[in-house]
Amino acid sequence: MRVYDIIAKKRDGYELSEEEISYLIRGYVKNEIPDYQMAAFLMAVYFQGMTEKETLFMTNEVAHSGDMADLSPIEGIKVDKHSTGGVGDKTTLIVAPIVASCGVKVAKMSGRGLGHTGGTVDKLESIPGYKTSLSREEFFKVVNETGLSVIGQSGNLTPADKKMYALRDVTATVDSIPLIAVSIMSKKLAAGSDCILLDVKTGSGAFMKSLEDSIALAEEMVKIGENAGRKTIALITDMDTPLGEAIGNSLEVKEAVDTLRGNGPKDLTTVCLHLAANMLVLGGVGSLEECLQKAETSLKDGSALERLIAMVEAQGGDSRVIRDTDCFEKAAYSHEVLARKDGIITSMDAQKCGIASVLLGAGRETKDSEVDFSAGIILHKKTGDFVCKGDVLATMYASKQEMFDAAEEEYYGAITIGNEKTERKPLLYARVSKEGVKRY
Amino acid sequence: MRVYDIIAKKRDGYELSEEEISYLIRGYVKNEIPDYQMAAFLMAVYFQGMTEKETLFMTNEVAHSGDMADLSPIEGIKVDKHSTGGVGDKTTLIVAPIVASCGVKVAKMSGRGLGHTGGTVDKLESIPGYKTSLSREEFFKVVNETGLSVIGQSGNLTPADKKMYALRDVTATVDSIPLIAVSIMSKKLAAGSDCILLDVKTGSGAFMKSLEDSIALAEEMVKIGENAGRKTIALITDMDTPLGEAIGNSLEVKEAVDTLRGNGPKDLTTVCLHLAANMLVLGGVGSLEECLQKAETSLKDGSALERLIAMVEAQGGDSRVIRDTDCFEKAAYSHEVLARKDGIITSMDAQKCGIASVLLGAGRETKDSEVDFSAGIILHKKTGDFVCKGDVLATMYASKQEMFDAAEEEYYGAITIGNEKTERKPLLYARVSKEGVKRY
Repeated sequence: MRVYDIIAKKRDGYELSEEEISYLIRGYVKNEIPDYQMAAFLMAVYFQGMTEKETLFMTNEVAHSGDMADLSPIEGIKVDKHSTGGVGDKTTLIVAPIVASCGVKVAKMSGRGLGHTGGTVDKLESIPGYKTSLSREEFFKVVNETGLSVIGQSGNLTPADKKMYALRDVTATVDSIPLIAVSIMSKKLAAGSDCILLDVKTGSGAFMKSLEDSIALAEEMVKIGENAGRKTIALITDMDTPLGEAIGNSLEVKEAVDTLRGNGPKDLTTVCLHLAANMLVLGGVGSLEECLQKAETSLKDGSALERLIAMVEAQGGDSRVIRDTDCFEKAAYSHEVLARKDGIITSMDAQKCGIASVLLGAGRETKDSEVDFSAGIILHKKTGDFVCKGDVLATMYASKQEMFDAAEEEYYGAITIGNEKTERKPLLYARVSKEGVKRY
Repeated sequence: MRVYDIIAKKRDGYELSEEEISYLIRGYVKNEIPDYQMAAFLMAVYFQGMTEKETLFMTNEVAHSGDMADLSPIEGIKVDKHSTGGVGDKTTLIVAPIVASCGVKVAKMSGRGLGHTGGTVDKLESIPGYKTSLSREEFFKVVNETGLSVIGQSGNLTPADKKMYALRDVTATVDSIPLIAVSIMSKKLAAGSDCILLDVKTGSGAFMKSLEDSIALAEEMVKIGENAGRKTIALITDMDTPLGEAIGNSLEVKEAVDTLRGNGPKDLTTVCLHLAANMLVLGGVGSLEECLQKAETSLKDGSALERLIAMVEAQGGDSRVIRDTDCFEKAAYSHEVLARKDGIITSMDAQKCGIASVLLGAGRETKDSEVDFSAGIILHKKTGDFVCKGDVLATMYASKQEMFDAAEEEYYGAITIGNEKTERKPLLYARVSKEGVKRY
């Protein structure tokens, strides 16, 4: 077998065999196939796409390029959740406790934030003492005892994906739906859960800017998951506007706790209930209607919050900050961003809001940046709200006064104030399962 | 400027600016841009093509990546000729003397053979003493005194092309018409002649297998040449069957001499007269009709042969082998390939004939192979000929008896003997000039 022939075959639009894909991925991980041949191959995939079989073969091969988590020591059905990343996306902190409180296990490895999107691991690390790095045995024990555990990625997970992603990042081959699907689903297969719920964000703050691309990506991923023997559902949710009102690590934990108490922002609560309900459906708990009911009850009766507290304590965290979020360390400085004119907020660019929060120290510009847990933004006005000149649009938090100027400018750039009456976009656009696409 | 943006722009089908192409090519030659980014770019070009402006900019940039020959010490108009490569293609040895004898200068750098196609430099080196490596001053002196000189490539000619070609060769991006056009034309611009005649071969033994691709390549190259200020014409000629009857270095020189004496095979003579006439048209000698007449006369009155002898002597070659081609050293062994059945030769695969001659030692399998000047094949029967079982199809020449088996099998594989009456394909398919495409 020759790499040249594999590149030419893909270039000419033919379907690659399992053996050819295996040869390509294994050779690349072993450095036997050079970057320049993989780069040519990836660009050919950009133009020719991949068939359902090809994406499945490649996902399996990439998943098996490193450790495959064996979650069998955890009793019951394990349901994983993946978000394609957004601004103010603290859903895992709410959804995982809800699901656990309804009897389905969540044993989840999460990532750190990079660029304008945050990461669940950073948010959890804003809880004093919380350990995101556990041994396998500790991880299993926490899930068995509390129903859930969220830790950072550890071990040698999908090295083929890491290597390919780094190459795609510098060769303009990131924006390929089959390659994105392979990248996400290989990590999910390796992570070992029985079922997978995908939260595909769409809009200005998301990786996928258009709804049609988001649905196409969701369909590819659901096919891969189901073909690989994992029950998989995807929800397409809005990321045109940041989710909820908090952006920043401890600010988002606080908002998650409020939501678990039933006092969260309406958009965040709605999205979380739907995500949780679909995870419960995957876990075999009942119909979507029944599962939505159970999820709501777990907020009302406090059982979901109890689960969060149990997990935090089991992982060494100081649960006082959960029980009373005023105990979180406060940022040294705060600053109010005022409306410069009267009008209606006709749009908010979520990506720019995310960048503003990075400028305040809440996120990472590069992999090695330090994160300021207390920094961030609380949004007081969102798309569709009427504002008068001088109204407080948002409150910013940072460790240095001089950080506010640049962040405020970025934030003003994110907000458009106009005259037209504006409805907020729907929160949920579609649900994709093996039965097909259901648009809301 | 970032390479990433240049790749993405090409990927998305936008036209690159001169600055962007310059940045890309210069950075690549300086090793500042890695192979993997260039590989992704080249695959994007494979799919998106290049505009007329882009190919011109890139050709100029690649030409200027190394030495630009200055032929101004040579008096008069210099016309170059390029063949895209074929089997039995000894046209330069015939055409250059004809053109020189009609008063137009030919100062030509030629290549060596590789794979199934031969190279003019190897053919000339079969003449004892002939130097294919001259100093600039010697080269100019030979052209000024004899009207022509054919030498090997020297100096640092188009390093960007060498580097890009090596990369294309392993990333399945060779078969891109704009990239082929850039590669050929950058070398022609760097070689310094005022006018360029392109002999674009088409058919089984050619790089371009289809007539339409050959015409498309010719059009791209003529546009580049004219846009770069060089008068350029392309002829599309047949390479479905080997040209003439000789394949192999001294065998081809002998056939060239026979042709210059007016005793050459009809196909070879016809193609050479048209190539020469078009070079004379480029040189401003007259109309195509007039130039064809002049070219024919130069064969009849022996003036073309005189020019070949003058050049060979000026470059240190022993002209006795030209005056009497029986003086060429003979191969140690010969072998007759006999027809295995009665019928009509319905096709000859020129590429396989070329491979058979490489197996006899006449060509190079790799760049470092040694060439046996006396080895090769004389074809006695060609497409359209009727043969009886036992007739001699061809005579093979080699330095070792054991070479014949594999070469003969390859040769049998090249020849199809059937029953249908078969016409040979046309020798000339089309002429492409700035006035457009004229099909014959």
